[in-house]
Amino acid sequence: MTDEAKLVEMVHGDGGRATRDLIDSVFIPALAGNSLSAADDAAALPQVPGSWMITTDAFVVSPAEFPGGDVGELAVYGTINDLAACGARPVYMTASFILQEGLDLDALRRVVTSMGHAAATEGVELVAADTKVVERGSADGVFISATGLGCRTHNVRLAPDRISAGDRVIVTGYVGDHGLAVLANREGFPFSPPAQSDCAPLWGVVRDVLQQVGDAVKFLRDPTRGGLATALKEMITSLPVDVMLREGDIPVRRTVREAADMLGLDPLYLANEGNMLMVVSEDAAGEVLKVLRCHDTAAAPSIVGEVTPGTAAVRVRTALGGTRNVGFFAGDPLPRIC
Amino acid sequence: MTDEAKLVEMVHGDGGRATRDLIDSVFIPALAGNSLSAADDAAALPQVPGSWMITTDAFVVSPAEFPGGDVGELAVYGTINDLAACGARPVYMTASFILQEGLDLDALRRVVTSMGHAAATEGVELVAADTKVVERGSADGVFISATGLGCRTHNVRLAPDRISAGDRVIVTGYVGDHGLAVLANREGFPFSPPAQSDCAPLWGVVRDVLQQVGDAVKFLRDPTRGGLATALKEMITSLPVDVMLREGDIPVRRTVREAADMLGLDPLYLANEGNMLMVVSEDAAGEVLKVLRCHDTAAAPSIVGEVTPGTAAVRVRTALGGTRNVGFFAGDPLPRIC
Repeated sequence: MTDEAKLVEMVHGDGGRATRDLIDSVFIPALAGNSLSAADDAAALPQVPGSWMITTDAFVVSPAEFPGGDVGELAVYGTINDLAACGARPVYMTASFILQEGLDLDALRRVVTSMGHAAATEGVELVAADTKVVERGSADGVFISATGLGCRTHNVRLAPDRISAGDRVIVTGYVGDHGLAVLANREGFPFSPPAQSDCAPLWGVVRDVLQQVGDAVKFLRDPTRGGLATALKEMITSLPVDVMLREGDIPVRRTVREAADMLGLDPLYLANEGNMLMVVSEDAAGEVLKVLRCHDTAAAPSIVGEVTPGTAAVRVRTALGGTRNVGFFAGDPLPRIC
Repeated sequence: MTDEAKLVEMVHGDGGRATRDLIDSVFIPALAGNSLSAADDAAALPQVPGSWMITTDAFVVSPAEFPGGDVGELAVYGTINDLAACGARPVYMTASFILQEGLDLDALRRVVTSMGHAAATEGVELVAADTKVVERGSADGVFISATGLGCRTHNVRLAPDRISAGDRVIVTGYVGDHGLAVLANREGFPFSPPAQSDCAPLWGVVRDVLQQVGDAVKFLRDPTRGGLATALKEMITSLPVDVMLREGDIPVRRTVREAADMLGLDPLYLANEGNMLMVVSEDAAGEVLKVLRCHDTAAAPSIVGEVTPGTAAVRVRTALGGTRNVGFFAGDPLPRIC
């Protein structure tokens, strides 16, 4: 690629020399250490002792670079966290990039470099990738679709039907950081201190919890789009239980609480990208907290509520002693949050 | 979803009830028979005897529905053909959908149904999916990123470095059908008969060829974006060989040849989506043709040229006896072709 080419052009998507140049000048250097080869259409996976878990997600966050992360890092951590939520060690991933004509090549390079760094740090290997270019106005910046492959080597079954009355509901971090950081940045709200995404990889946390308490862990979920409220509602759909949260125990940063209040948003519905929802048996809850407190990525380990007999309701006991019902999200959608 | 909701709306991407409604009303029925579950973030893969191959691609073809196929079918067949080109039986795939606000829900339903049908017919199971919605003007219709997992159960190594002088170059079908069909449809060119995409799955063809001649097959490639010319140029990069094609032996439909002439395009650079490039040893070429002639999906099995000692050049011997050099594509790009 010549020095003059500072923007993505349609020719970068022609599948010929310009595509190769883009791959060689941006993707290969940024993703060095991965087994990507521009010449191969597929990669081979080795045999593993456990079973492979697979997950896929598109990342369309806007803006692509936000306080605390960017779409490249988000694609890696989001994939890792989906696998972690199934109790699988993240091992491989693929990424397909849809680039908009006119995208700044330096911005693309930053995002891909960040992605490569995140994958390398977490020991996840990017084994296949693809790049397409679409016309100005037919996509917005950079979209990344990622597929993750993880290896499940233990026998803990993580599923909502294992949840029963008495179980404790735990979160590992502050609630709503990512959603608020992206919204505030996109809309130019000058909150102080500025909200930062919680974007972080959670396999290490999950691995240690599983190792410590085993099948006392009933269910895990990465509460991204739709937030903690949506994750809980979906979790107990059609189960004969309720979840009762205690408002005072839900960790929400002051900036996030105040900004959410001002915008008329409930932090329970704001996306998290570095927070794991865990449902564990009552007698293991204390032990789980101890494990979480040893991890920097578990920013605010908290028992936020418990499971009771019921009819699939999620409720919050407020500081004043009342309770309110938490439904599926019904306000204006919060687009392009992840 | 209410009957009034005929278009994709931003709320369909909120990760809550509307997203669930979209999945339940469009995706689940269209993809019945697959092990997709809206409640799970990941799926488990069984152990297999051979090794897993993995491939990924974004499909952004415009228009999403074109003569002879649509983006849903293309995502399945494109994934199958990438795996087939590595000699792997396609087994699983994941799909992530990026939908534009305002997309017609019936059009989406057609595309997803076509995808489900293509996967079911070919015995490929869709095991994980994701849907995001982006604002009007920030994507164009529907983009599908697909990841395929295939199982390699034989020991034939398919790689350019196995290619040597004397090998024969075979194509299984007419050259340029897909590229021309999409371009003509997009631009409204009234060619008669109208060009049809060759969009088709090629694992059956590849499987039978491998079974019949084994490691006499040196290399396979699905010549999509960039066409046969680009696939051949990439194949022999840095190899001490040339490829000499015989123009008269390259199967090109009359409509495609005439339309390409009129548009100033060379069919060798037009995308194919149901055509496999095969390089096989000289003594196996006849046997390979025999196998191909038993397959409906091999529309025009032809030995189109051979490998000679050389310096990574691709040349065409014309009907008049001259030769011309085939370079990497250097004209205007042909965007959104796959």
